[in-house]
This record gives sequence, structure tokens and C-alpha cells, in this order.
Amino acid sequence: MHRLPFTDNYTLRPNEVDVEHLLRLSSLADMFQNSAWRSADVLGFGFHDLTSQGLAWVLSRMQITLDSYPDWGETVQLDTWPKRTDRLFALRDFELYSQSDKSEPVVRASSAWLLIDLKTRRPRRLESLESAMPSLDRDAIEATPVKLSCPDSMPLHNVVQVRRSNLDMNYHTNNAAYIAWIEDCIPMEMYQHRRIHELTVNFVGESFIGDQLTIEYQLDQNHMNGRICNQKKQDVVLFSAGLSTRT
Amino acid sequence: MHRLPFTDNYTLRPNEVDVEHLLRLSSLADMFQNSAWRSADVLGFGFHDLTSQGLAWVLSRMQITLDSYPDWGETVQLDTWPKRTDRLFALRDFELYSQSDKSEPVVRASSAWLLIDLKTRRPRRLESLESAMPSLDRDAIEATPVKLSCPDSMPLHNVVQVRRSNLDMNYHTNNAAYIAWIEDCIPMEMYQHRRIHELTVNFVGESFIGDQLTIEYQLDQNHMNGRICNQKKQDVVLFSAGLSTRT
Repeated sequence: MHRLPFTDNYTLRPNEVDVEHLLRLSSLADMFQNSAWRSADVLGFGFHDLTSQGLAWVLSRMQITLDSYPDWGETVQLDTWPKRTDRLFALRDFELYSQSDKSEPVVRASSAWLLIDLKTRRPRRLESLESAMPSLDRDAIEATPVKLSCPDSMPLHNVVQVRRSNLDMNYHTNNAAYIAWIEDCIPMEMYQHRRIHELTVNFVGESFIGDQLTIEYQLDQNHMNGRICNQKKQDVVLFSAGLSTRT
Repeated sequence: MHRLPFTDNYTLRPNEVDVEHLLRLSSLADMFQNSAWRSADVLGFGFHDLTSQGLAWVLSRMQITLDSYPDWGETVQLDTWPKRTDRLFALRDFELYSQSDKSEPVVRASSAWLLIDLKTRRPRRLESLESAMPSLDRDAIEATPVKLSCPDSMPLHNVVQVRRSNLDMNYHTNNAAYIAWIEDCIPMEMYQHRRIHELTVNFVGESFIGDQLTIEYQLDQNHMNGRICNQKKQDVVLFSAGLSTRT
């Protein structure tokens, strides 16, 4: 029996909130990843199940809508469920609820995952898994997260070197690290007065320990585009983000 | 009624473990901080109690002994309690237990905190709090964490810039960020074959967003010294660490 949605409770810790005591987006991405893996595990399609078949889930795209930000010490409920597939994507949705009011989620998200063959590093078709994989016919966000088109050139913000603490168990840079780098681009004055309301991210390529990454972004009133590339291969985008803010 | 030790359970998440699926030291520091603050809050000496009096607890020194490293997905029990004071230090100890065997802690730690006046940024004497503050006469590690003396000059490893995601609610670089920077110095081959068994850290000064920090370290067989300074004020050490490893 696999009851869906899968539910986890999180009580927000000091390291999961920002200077304003509110949930960081990178911490939200960590929570999504933790619950997604725990849910997949319960359903029989988790990390260990897939690794033993030479396969891995790799997060490709995600769209997040945030109506409010939970606070330090607050307990939130995170629901997640696999829904349908769309071409090579397995879609998984998330809803985050404040403990004090469960009538509406404060955060909604949809994510698109590829099933990667660890030997060839290429995506596999999902037909074989699809029939066996339980899912829920329910949308946190209906549309499949889009492919972003960034402006051709954007101002360089920073160059960072991938450190071991940015890596995950696949030995490549973790998705939350890219989100933290982009979150850090937002100027402090804007960060303190406006909050990210919608965020779409595309994880396009891998980076590894020691790689030098360029972080570029462009602000246009309430909208920001960001891009992270490998400094040695500037034509290859590893990560892109589009976000809008509101007061 | 304040039952001591204060206890929290943690089920290790993907972002809390390293490439080898084992608990990161910086995540351990985050867990210590979370439980310390939660414990202080229950005792009436927490973040909000102190802020309203213009005071704050600031972590000054910590010693950690790790006999084994918990794994991804494992649930661990963290016990913490205030013990005695030592000059200007309020001492707080920690013991981390594996859920499968609670006869001996897998991690033991002792920490020394200063009570800082937020206006003058200087430490306050503890007499006024001491009589009112509940404590437990029990040692995870008996000795007060020592003041480290680092070699005068060490090879430069890296220069990093403090980003917003390195800050905590006090708007300065969080203690776990310094630990992550030092943890990242350990060469990969050593990291995969030897584990940190003992770590002592001193938090000496503050750094803020945009500051450029120099990270220096020196390896001597199973021992490593590390130091982090503000690049503009090389004579001022912000953080130092001494650690020993074993297979």
C-alpha cells in the first residue's frame, strides 16, 4: 500500500532561514529533494532501487510559486506525489502547507525528472517504469515546467569554484547549490523588500569539484534572469533561472 | 519543569551527507546550533529572550570527537545540556547517538559560548544569569575547549567572498560556513580514506557580506591546522581549526 501524497513535516532550523528569518529557496530545494527521494524509495523507485539497475533520477526542470515564506521555528507540512509523464519527463509535484492554516498551500511546485542511464549519461524512455509506478492525478501546478530562453549575454556577477561541500552523492554539483548561487545575486536592498514569487529553473549540465563557474544575471524591474556556465566552455550553459518578485 | 538533557531526533537528509553518504561536519554544526537554540529557548535563555535584553549567545570555541559517522537516512538522537561556566564562557555539551545502539555516543562535543552585549559587541559577565540558568553536572568532554595556537604562516588554499547564504540571523558569517570551508580543504584522496576524528575550532572574529576571506591550511600526516582571515586585515584571524584524522 502506497498512500499518496507522501508527507513529511519540517520544523525550520536556523541554517534553513535567511537573515530575515525566512525560509531560503535553497533550503526549500533541499526539502523537496529529501521528500522526493523518500517518496520514491517508498514506491520502490528510490536511489538504491535505481542505482542497482544502473539508473538515476536527475532533476531537469522545476517551477515554484511562493505565496508566503515560512519562518524560523515554524513547522510546515510538505506533500509530494508523482503525477503523469510528459515525453522523457517524469513529473512530480509539491505542496507546502503552514501548520496553522491547511486550507491553501503557501508554496506550490512542479518538477520534471529524467531517468538517466549511469553508463551512457543519457536519458532512458520511461515506458518500462510507467506502468509499475504509482501516481496521483492531481496538479500543484498544471503545466510542465518550461525550457527557459535566456538573453544571449548578461553581465557577469561572480566566478565561483565548485567545492566538495557543493557536491551530492552523485559526485556532481547539487541542484540546491545552483539555486543558492542565483539567490545570492539578488541585491540586498531588493532582497529585504521584495520576495521571489515565482521561480523557474533548468538544470542542463553537470559540474564537478574544482570547476570554475561563471554566474551571470540581469535584473529588469521585478524580473531576473540568471545563468551559470563552466568558465572553460562558455557556450555550454549548466543552469538557468528566471524569477519574478513582489512585495 | 526543564528536563535535561534536551533531546532532538534527526533523520539525515541528502544535503546533510557528503559524497560518501556520511554526515558532513558542517551539517553536524548546524544540528548542534539548532538543538542548542531550541534547548536555550525552553530554558528561558533563547534567541528571543536575549535579543529583548540586548544580548546574544555567540559560539566561541568547540571541540568535537567523532568515533563514527552516521549515514544518509539514519535517524540519530542528539542530546544537549548547559553545564558549568568557566570564566566568561557558558559551557554546553552534546552527545549524538545512533538509533541502533544507544550504549555509547558516536559523537561527543563541548562548546564554549560568550554572552555578547549587542550594543558594545563585548562579552558580559555571566553572574547574573548563572544562578537562574538550569544546568546538568555531566561532561560529554570534560575539558573546556582550548585556545588554538596556529603556525605563524601557512600556505594559502583559497580566497572566498562571503555571500548572503553564508550569513545567519545576526547578519554575520555563520559558524557552520567556516567549518565547511575548512572541511573543503582536505584533499579528496585523504577525505575518502581517512575521517576526522577530533576537531577543535575557535571563532575569533566576525565577517560580513562581501568580505574577501583567505583560507590557509597545513597538513602534517594525520593532523591539519587551518585558519581563515579577512584578506584586508591579514593580522586578524577570524577562525582557526585543528583536526586529526584516522582511518
